[in-house]
Amino acid sequence: MDQIDAFQDKITSDQTESQTYELDTDQVDEIVDALDAGDFALVRSLCAPLHYSDVADLLEWLSTADRLRLLDVLGKDLDSDALAELDDTVRDEIIEYWGLDNIVQAVTDLDSDDAVDFIEDLDEEDQQRVLQAMPAEDRTFIVESLKYPEDSAGRLMQRELVSVPEFWTVGKTIDFMRQSADDDPESLPEAFYDIYVVDPAHKPVGAVTLSSLLRTRRPIKVTDIMWTEMHIIPVSTDQEDVAYLFRQRDLVSAPVVDDGGRLVGAITIDDVVDVIDDEHEEDMMLLAGVGEDDLYDAALDTAKSRFIWLTVNLLTAVLASAVISLFEATIEQIVALAVLMPIVASMGGNAGTQTLTVAVRGLATKELTATNSARLITKELLVGSINGVLFAVIAGCVAWLWFDDLALGLVIALAMVVNMTIAGLAGTSIPVLLERAGIDPAIASSVFVTTVTDVVGFFVFLGLAAWILL
Amino acid sequence: MDQIDAFQDKITSDQTESQTYELDTDQVDEIVDALDAGDFALVRSLCAPLHYSDVADLLEWLSTADRLRLLDVLGKDLDSDALAELDDTVRDEIIEYWGLDNIVQAVTDLDSDDAVDFIEDLDEEDQQRVLQAMPAEDRTFIVESLKYPEDSAGRLMQRELVSVPEFWTVGKTIDFMRQSADDDPESLPEAFYDIYVVDPAHKPVGAVTLSSLLRTRRPIKVTDIMWTEMHIIPVSTDQEDVAYLFRQRDLVSAPVVDDGGRLVGAITIDDVVDVIDDEHEEDMMLLAGVGEDDLYDAALDTAKSRFIWLTVNLLTAVLASAVISLFEATIEQIVALAVLMPIVASMGGNAGTQTLTVAVRGLATKELTATNSARLITKELLVGSINGVLFAVIAGCVAWLWFDDLALGLVIALAMVVNMTIAGLAGTSIPVLLERAGIDPAIASSVFVTTVTDVVGFFVFLGLAAWILL
Repeated sequence: MDQIDAFQDKITSDQTESQTYELDTDQVDEIVDALDAGDFALVRSLCAPLHYSDVADLLEWLSTADRLRLLDVLGKDLDSDALAELDDTVRDEIIEYWGLDNIVQAVTDLDSDDAVDFIEDLDEEDQQRVLQAMPAEDRTFIVESLKYPEDSAGRLMQRELVSVPEFWTVGKTIDFMRQSADDDPESLPEAFYDIYVVDPAHKPVGAVTLSSLLRTRRPIKVTDIMWTEMHIIPVSTDQEDVAYLFRQRDLVSAPVVDDGGRLVGAITIDDVVDVIDDEHEEDMMLLAGVGEDDLYDAALDTAKSRFIWLTVNLLTAVLASAVISLFEATIEQIVALAVLMPIVASMGGNAGTQTLTVAVRGLATKELTATNSARLITKELLVGSINGVLFAVIAGCVAWLWFDDLALGLVIALAMVVNMTIAGLAGTSIPVLLERAGIDPAIASSVFVTTVTDVVGFFVFLGLAAWILL
Repeated sequence: MDQIDAFQDKITSDQTESQTYELDTDQVDEIVDALDAGDFALVRSLCAPLHYSDVADLLEWLSTADRLRLLDVLGKDLDSDALAELDDTVRDEIIEYWGLDNIVQAVTDLDSDDAVDFIEDLDEEDQQRVLQAMPAEDRTFIVESLKYPEDSAGRLMQRELVSVPEFWTVGKTIDFMRQSADDDPESLPEAFYDIYVVDPAHKPVGAVTLSSLLRTRRPIKVTDIMWTEMHIIPVSTDQEDVAYLFRQRDLVSAPVVDDGGRLVGAITIDDVVDVIDDEHEEDMMLLAGVGEDDLYDAALDTAKSRFIWLTVNLLTAVLASAVISLFEATIEQIVALAVLMPIVASMGGNAGTQTLTVAVRGLATKELTATNSARLITKELLVGSINGVLFAVIAGCVAWLWFDDLALGLVIALAMVVNMTIAGLAGTSIPVLLERAGIDPAIASSVFVTTVTDVVGFFVFLGLAAWILL
């Protein structure tokens, strides 16, 4: 007893010390040192206890040279699940280094949904090579899955699930699972949380949670404890909608049906968590004009992928400059205008970005809808004008005191009110209109909004100055 | 049979038609129309079939006036779970309208983790009033939970869980759950995915997934099928680390222990999904300088919460203006500089924001670590200088052709290379340094980075112009 307690105390205190759970930098350093020293036995023994997610992290964190050395050392011992967890860029590098034929075995070891995730990124020729090497049963499912659009429920689901006919009892269901586990453990999914009740046409009629199965006595029929309000997901559903459904309904799994309504797979929460992460990353990156795999891409690829967005930004910056050039004569006479004009544009751009971020997030979480969009736009107009007035007073006083010119202060104050109000309007209405036009509001909003605030900011400030001060 | 098939076809086609799952705008309009017409029976019958998450959405989307009218109509029929799903701002409005005493009952109906979530936002006096009204058993747990820091595992966990001693068999465990369900269904959690094996001191020694329990024969001992590598979470763990652990290990539930290592609760994936969403939202909003509950706040509150960030932005804009004012004499002689200078600053700002977003996201997902940060900074320096050279050529040509002045083109080209390289450096090193200093890299990075690119952009461009062109 004391021994167990001591062991427990150790576990607990270990856990308390390292509460952040990620792979330790010291561990990584130790592994790199062992690689440098050529002590491959030590490398293998350091990597052996690592969870496959940590192995994936380790491979991602290392430099390319260290990564390939580590691959040489680990060789066939590399967990196929680690391969599935890897970032696309790093995985491609490994496929190229090892050659596709050497990792086909790893792919066939994966769960069906992870295998699809792996294969869908390969080019067609490589896809065929991997599929040929797979057992026929797995192959059929994967070929089927690849027919569904990318980012659809059909790609996300796994084939492995437990379904039972309507007339079965709790006892019969439990016996069936015990028998399956003895006869062919592979036929059961690795982890599952619901079993599905299907009619003779294999259409789902209800779901039974494992917890309700466990607390119900054997003679009760599954149809008596099944949950019929379950959410049946058609294979072609977009993964973003699947994620929304899981979040909204606190689901842990849901059945997927084909066009004929027949049960063909199940989606579980762990896949959905990855989708939520991906969709979020996409929103955040699109807002800043960055590609998704940016972090591990080579410098040249990164530079190339960011080039397009920077070009768009250059065009809008030139547009803003063109507006300024309309007032060259005015600036020549009052050079203070050149000093102050970036303040008006910058405050408008910032206020616009604040509003835009709230709107894009609201649209992504479906909190901003047709019902309340008009109300939100009105609110943001009001927020923009309130802060516009406040910063008009502040910036006006700064300009007045700095250049000892009350009229100049008045001009910047007026321009500030106008630009920050327009920022509130543009920051909400542009993403809402893009969403209605079927364009992802995250992608283009930010250019449009800052273009509006730059152009309006410079035009109003310099225009008022030309009109009032000259 | 035909009837069931027809029913199934209907379900399937309904599902296929509305694949987006969110509450339908038409439904909302119908409910608002019924409210306007005073047909309260219709309102109630329209709301009755809605899931509690949809009721929460409905309340959030309506205007304040409609919301309070709907509350009057629904009255005590309002699902307490809907109350738990509400945005804080909207919930506060409802508490104020109904009075706290009228919703105490609703709170006592909630799962313990949702009740904590509800109570933690109240002020101390209101907390006491709600706690007094609760059954003693629930109260103890909630008082206990509230002692843990906000956003800790202790706040996130629920008390309801199933734990069994080490000597039990699968059969005994199943019998125990069936008996509990008959005797006191409240004692079992509504949904659970693992049961925990505990030693006599109530310390967890392993976890058994329900699926493994179901496929194992009755005489087998739980210790033979338990999973001992489970992740034990100390109550004080930050919820962000809990979310990381769940994601990294694809967990659906995990046991929570107190300082003595005793099992005190369990965290399930549905709570973690909410945390993941919250943390995402926080990162995105912080980057733009917006508060979290922004969407449903009143205009004045929103304006106030954004004021601070805008003030910081004003200070940095004035700093940039001060740099420009150093070169007033230069601008007076060559007014084209005033026209072109925003291009240099804007390109630097954009390149810096791209880099910054990748770095902040990488830090949040722990993909950017001490191991690879030096490598990433080097990479971003390279990316910045590659794009810097490309845009130097483009912007240089634009300026040359526009103002028919080759030297001016050279000046803007040089300034562009310098500023975009600095942007790459600042965009990665600033968030990395903030993270090391223990400051959330999302919050302050964006000001620092654009301040650097504005100041450097204006200074280098105008400085080079003064040196070369005059």
